[in-house]
Amino acid sequence: MANEKIPYKIYLEETQMPKAWYNLRADMRNKPAPLLNPQTLEPMSVDELSAVFCKELAIQELDDTTPFVDIPDEILSFYKMYRPSPLVRAYCLEEKLKTPAKVYYKFEGNNTSGSHKLNSAIAQAYYAKKQGLVGVTTETGAGQWGTALSMACAYLGLDCKVYMVKVSYEQKPFRRELMRTYGASVTPSPSAETQCGRKILAAHPETGGSLGCAISEAVEKAVGTPGYRYVLGSVLNQVLLHQSIIGLETKAALDKYEIVPDIIIGCAGGGSNLGGLIAPFMGQKLRGEADYRIIAVEPVSCPSLTRGVYAYDFCDTGMICPLSKMYTLGSGFIPAPNHAGGLRYHGMSTTLSQLYHDGLMEARSVEQTKVFEAAELFARTEGILPAPESSHAIRAAIDEAENCSLTGEEKTIVFGLTGTGYFDMTAYEKYNDGKMSDYVPTDEEIGESLANLPKV
Amino acid sequence: MANEKIPYKIYLEETQMPKAWYNLRADMRNKPAPLLNPQTLEPMSVDELSAVFCKELAIQELDDTTPFVDIPDEILSFYKMYRPSPLVRAYCLEEKLKTPAKVYYKFEGNNTSGSHKLNSAIAQAYYAKKQGLVGVTTETGAGQWGTALSMACAYLGLDCKVYMVKVSYEQKPFRRELMRTYGASVTPSPSAETQCGRKILAAHPETGGSLGCAISEAVEKAVGTPGYRYVLGSVLNQVLLHQSIIGLETKAALDKYEIVPDIIIGCAGGGSNLGGLIAPFMGQKLRGEADYRIIAVEPVSCPSLTRGVYAYDFCDTGMICPLSKMYTLGSGFIPAPNHAGGLRYHGMSTTLSQLYHDGLMEARSVEQTKVFEAAELFARTEGILPAPESSHAIRAAIDEAENCSLTGEEKTIVFGLTGTGYFDMTAYEKYNDGKMSDYVPTDEEIGESLANLPKV
Repeated sequence: MANEKIPYKIYLEETQMPKAWYNLRADMRNKPAPLLNPQTLEPMSVDELSAVFCKELAIQELDDTTPFVDIPDEILSFYKMYRPSPLVRAYCLEEKLKTPAKVYYKFEGNNTSGSHKLNSAIAQAYYAKKQGLVGVTTETGAGQWGTALSMACAYLGLDCKVYMVKVSYEQKPFRRELMRTYGASVTPSPSAETQCGRKILAAHPETGGSLGCAISEAVEKAVGTPGYRYVLGSVLNQVLLHQSIIGLETKAALDKYEIVPDIIIGCAGGGSNLGGLIAPFMGQKLRGEADYRIIAVEPVSCPSLTRGVYAYDFCDTGMICPLSKMYTLGSGFIPAPNHAGGLRYHGMSTTLSQLYHDGLMEARSVEQTKVFEAAELFARTEGILPAPESSHAIRAAIDEAENCSLTGEEKTIVFGLTGTGYFDMTAYEKYNDGKMSDYVPTDEEIGESLANLPKV
Repeated sequence: MANEKIPYKIYLEETQMPKAWYNLRADMRNKPAPLLNPQTLEPMSVDELSAVFCKELAIQELDDTTPFVDIPDEILSFYKMYRPSPLVRAYCLEEKLKTPAKVYYKFEGNNTSGSHKLNSAIAQAYYAKKQGLVGVTTETGAGQWGTALSMACAYLGLDCKVYMVKVSYEQKPFRRELMRTYGASVTPSPSAETQCGRKILAAHPETGGSLGCAISEAVEKAVGTPGYRYVLGSVLNQVLLHQSIIGLETKAALDKYEIVPDIIIGCAGGGSNLGGLIAPFMGQKLRGEADYRIIAVEPVSCPSLTRGVYAYDFCDTGMICPLSKMYTLGSGFIPAPNHAGGLRYHGMSTTLSQLYHDGLMEARSVEQTKVFEAAELFARTEGILPAPESSHAIRAAIDEAENCSLTGEEKTIVFGLTGTGYFDMTAYEKYNDGKMSDYVPTDEEIGESLANLPKV
């Protein structure tokens, strides 16, 4: 089909959908560093992890040798409700930018959860159900993950308990109601339901909560309730495995028209979207079959790859989760409030951290106002209102396309459009009113937080 | 492809997209009654209409003989950004209902405006641009139409002025911000910008406004500002013409798999979605080529087809627009507040009114709480959070599917899922909290309103 005109949207047929996830770790020579038990500092075993995660997911978490994992039929059926997602040629954006570059985006927002999070939510819920569990617990900040998990649990008839950072619970009532519509119970965190929550409430009765605290509550609840396990929407290897569906579909769609990208761009918070999008391309790179520029884009306010250090750190502020070796700003780092809630994590997926450390990908950070400028341009030309998180990738894609305008190069750029911004209108309002600002953390702030890294 | 397994989602290829709209009126033996000049009571001419609408649209409004109207290339390009929309087989819903029926829905919500309104918005904006106009004015209540028009105008670089019913402007700030992100100017109505607005403000300084008043302001502004025209998102024949893209795609997708529907269901407010969805099927019916049950679903709180009369009436409460012969509850009818803002119009498209009058389609009304019950079930099984408007069609489709469970008939049901409910979470919250109620207008209320019909 090489000479055919590329359509605006490339959809795979259902029969062309990937039937297995791709485990990038299998092709890595330098494997991601193991998770460590925070007490013993020894690598975590499947058995240890199984107290928190369901068994099959604990296995997936530690498996760095199996290249492909079959997607169970039940998950494939669910995927078929909203996948394959389109790979869109941004003809209108290209024209607006007058760039010789060819820009494509993989759009993951065409499902009610509004983002790619659903790809892993259904997988994690499925394995929980298969193990005979009653329900799962999780935390949510911006709410995309909590919504996705609620949808997956509603489909499978699994109980879903979400600890939502209190300030989001109050400021994002629509997200909360969306989860409730899908039957989830949503509790503002910190809550009186857990020891950890009660402790924090006693010390800071007026606190708006934090993601770190919500994680601790969700884990405590899962571990202390028979028939429950904890699930998480990013950072983990298992999540990257499930999200590889994004990259596999993207690659299949490009192959259909014999398109070879030059640059692949994704926004990076914990790494779930980026890791999924780049998986098969990075695999080719690792096997020496192809070369691509791969760019992670993060907010200047939370620059773990570009200003953090590569070291073992806690994944949560409560320090009860395993230690993970990653690019981190320190688990005590509190990013300045910004509107890309999904990118406000202090660390980064171990797998992506290792790849970045090995020079296999680039990273850059962008300012919030520049991100919304890109978001607005994108919305007006391509029609889709992007999530603030996704708009980090849009910013970088536009910058690269504009470089091509200067050099005259006809590069092919692919970026991940992870979701929609329907529940982020407060942020857009701020931008529309010219009231949005940028914050760059000082070296001192980051240094202070990094001084408290665990001694491993 | 008759024996192939029907996929979850049937997507047409871009090359299979309709290239012309279908004008249902051309096949009607009993043509819809003409619009009348409210002063002279004579049929409106193209010239008279051109003072309010742009020329090409005035022609489309009155043309009841041309069966197909070519879709201009620029509109086709825009359509390709978000169309073809999927025809989805509701496998999960069928399984949940344990029905032998086969249920399909045409999903129009996969674009940022969140509904089918974009199909006509881009057409109306295009003809305005082609005529060399500077901008367009319109009104919006629930906000779907205003959003769609803002998107279309942003794409074409046309000025867009939206009068938004004040109570919605205040209670739906996210809708407002979405329009502003697309560069529209949004004014709460009544405003001091128009004579009509000032008059109402003087008499009722605390009013929250109404759609009727917002229409009057938008028309006044358009007529009084050089280079501007007024555009409307429903009711008009031109809108049904543009919306025929929904039905044409639906029919093409069904034909691809040799599927013949038994029942076609759409929600009905002003008739834009229903008229578009049923167009080619009704055409077959009119030409005696096929027969289908076609069902219009409206809220019990605003039952124009099921409890209104077929008569000439004003289209707006300000009584400045042409008179239209339609099923109406009277232009002074104020429907009880309900959460399907898009279905709260006192009248109905002239074309649909004539077809209903001629016994070519059925109508039924449903209660709000039953509608949200259906919406919740649909969201949990099919994943998509439906708009309250669309959920009227879901309710009827579920009822028909459940009938099939009783009779054992394997009927094929197609319904229109016009949009998503992301901006209707206040309604879902009310339902989640068990605080939603139903209101059925009394015969006296309707009778009082109908007593004021114009004498034609």
